[in-house]
Amino acid sequence: MSNNTGKVLESYPMNGGDGAYSYTKNSYLQRAATSITDAKIHEAITEKLDIGKLSSTSNTLRIADLGCSVGPNTFIAMQNVLEAMQHKHRTQDPSSKFPEFQVLYNDHASNDFNTLFASLPSERQYFAAGVPGSFYNRLFPKSSLHFVHSSYALQWLAKVPEEVLDKNSPAWNKGRIHYTNAAEDVGNAYAAQFAKDMGIFLDARAKELVAGGMMVLILPSIPDGIPNSRVPAGVMFDLLGSSLMDMAKEEIISESLVDSFNLPVYAASLKEMKDIIERNGCFSIEKIETTNPLSKIDIQLGTRPCTMHLRAGMEGIISKHFGNKIIDELFDRLDRKAEEYSYLLNASYTAGTQLFIVLTRK
Amino acid sequence: MSNNTGKVLESYPMNGGDGAYSYTKNSYLQRAATSITDAKIHEAITEKLDIGKLSSTSNTLRIADLGCSVGPNTFIAMQNVLEAMQHKHRTQDPSSKFPEFQVLYNDHASNDFNTLFASLPSERQYFAAGVPGSFYNRLFPKSSLHFVHSSYALQWLAKVPEEVLDKNSPAWNKGRIHYTNAAEDVGNAYAAQFAKDMGIFLDARAKELVAGGMMVLILPSIPDGIPNSRVPAGVMFDLLGSSLMDMAKEEIISESLVDSFNLPVYAASLKEMKDIIERNGCFSIEKIETTNPLSKIDIQLGTRPCTMHLRAGMEGIISKHFGNKIIDELFDRLDRKAEEYSYLLNASYTAGTQLFIVLTRK
Repeated sequence: MSNNTGKVLESYPMNGGDGAYSYTKNSYLQRAATSITDAKIHEAITEKLDIGKLSSTSNTLRIADLGCSVGPNTFIAMQNVLEAMQHKHRTQDPSSKFPEFQVLYNDHASNDFNTLFASLPSERQYFAAGVPGSFYNRLFPKSSLHFVHSSYALQWLAKVPEEVLDKNSPAWNKGRIHYTNAAEDVGNAYAAQFAKDMGIFLDARAKELVAGGMMVLILPSIPDGIPNSRVPAGVMFDLLGSSLMDMAKEEIISESLVDSFNLPVYAASLKEMKDIIERNGCFSIEKIETTNPLSKIDIQLGTRPCTMHLRAGMEGIISKHFGNKIIDELFDRLDRKAEEYSYLLNASYTAGTQLFIVLTRK
Repeated sequence: MSNNTGKVLESYPMNGGDGAYSYTKNSYLQRAATSITDAKIHEAITEKLDIGKLSSTSNTLRIADLGCSVGPNTFIAMQNVLEAMQHKHRTQDPSSKFPEFQVLYNDHASNDFNTLFASLPSERQYFAAGVPGSFYNRLFPKSSLHFVHSSYALQWLAKVPEEVLDKNSPAWNKGRIHYTNAAEDVGNAYAAQFAKDMGIFLDARAKELVAGGMMVLILPSIPDGIPNSRVPAGVMFDLLGSSLMDMAKEEIISESLVDSFNLPVYAASLKEMKDIIERNGCFSIEKIETTNPLSKIDIQLGTRPCTMHLRAGMEGIISKHFGNKIIDELFDRLDRKAEEYSYLLNASYTAGTQLFIVLTRK
């Protein structure tokens, strides 16, 4: 066993603190996703989680959020899981002793845990801990978890696929920063990386979850047969790439720096995920479905929130590659470009761009 | 159960980061203490910890460091405990399955966990987690810990005793910032607060440690019958107080601000600690002894390291009360005063100013 996460896996922390560009203030798309999935998680726990069995073998029930970032969404999600488990315990097993709960907040060591810890709910009914490290490694002792939750984190690959950075490969992704609108080989390299990473993820969680333990995964996805250029995230990534290329053409940054930059994010289809989970073999699929992450947002989003949202999530990784001096100009350009191409955003598919998966450990 | 630590208990984080005044760069007195106690801890584990019994009921052995600050001392101490437990397991129970280890690093939520997590040893043979909160509260689930370690943290009281801030009390500590050289009532108020806090600490740990689990406590102490003004820490606290009073007399700060400031730190005698532990009743005392924290330091410490050391530990709490503008001047004055009164430091007792305690949970 080694938790040596620092050497091989990259980390892309969300913007820390609580300033204008912070993840804390710009994570409402994820929050919207949470509001839809809270009820689904409650239902899954009520129908499929055998709390009586879990608490008969452990005084403590442990819940982990993988890729928790800095809140507040993680606190809301964990509170929802906790309440659903408490409710299930009260109805299933009212006479037995009430278990204690521990919530384990996980993200890369470079995540802003100081902000996370400072904003932990003061009236929480659980013991809290932070667990630093990549979830593409083992993070927790064997059979120590009873519920695992991960929302909008598994789209981050462990690394950029090597082929897309290789000038001699047909998958070399010159002039682009993502597989959106790129050659098929580029998309295939991303898909292979995702399948490999997800396999490692499932192997690690299979060791950490007790038999009968539950795992809920929520991640961006793509409807079968729809190209990535027709979903909002794909449109934005493409506009971000072309903003960078504009800056390269104006010699503000070097073109080779753009060529060597790729966003390590991937949206899988339902079928892809189902195949990977079945190939792993350690989990029963209790539910797998696509949903619409935006269906509960009742305000009309302009393009400005889209760029702010992208900035909160991507500023870190872009700064690391290009330096932080270009950031303001880049996102100003992206703002204007998103406005110009707003018809692409408006015409993009939002239905079916979120996967909701409930697994139990066999 | 509530982990609502934020409201009643104060926190006094060590200086974060790794700059000139950081705790990371100025914690060598604590490190010196560690080098002496490492061997003692190894011996206690070898002689008194029944690893076979502990690992027969849990696949995971959990070690907690309470008041870990930001390293590197905590990593060295935890590695030492881990190796001693692994060694004991190999010799006591060579045929049984090797357990997994989890190390839980605890300190106040305001501790710099980002620095701590960034500097975790990359080749560690354990799962790491951070647990934010005051150790004068419950921090971990019931019966979840197998070994608890706390070094140079328990001298911090949960709060300044109320009487020393009360103008109408005989314990009002006018013109001083500590019980060193103060009226007897002030010392009694500090002693009562320490006894209360330590009782709460022992109650909480008694719930969290499994039967047969071990707890090692290392804390500054005072030889029986010696006044606090005759040990190095007492001398420094008194000089710090008189530096503040000098600044009040020169009207740089207000005298009432000095009157309302008291350092919430206390050094107990061996007899005091023994009484408190026996009154709690949940632990067997395997060893309790005083040692000399400085006996392994072979360089002659000047007064400058003493003020740097004090600054790393106390800058936070002083800034919170007086603002951070006075800090540089205050410690410049303390530097000069420590030089002037170096004969007091040189004549002070260092022998017997550290308590080393090994307890097992009954």
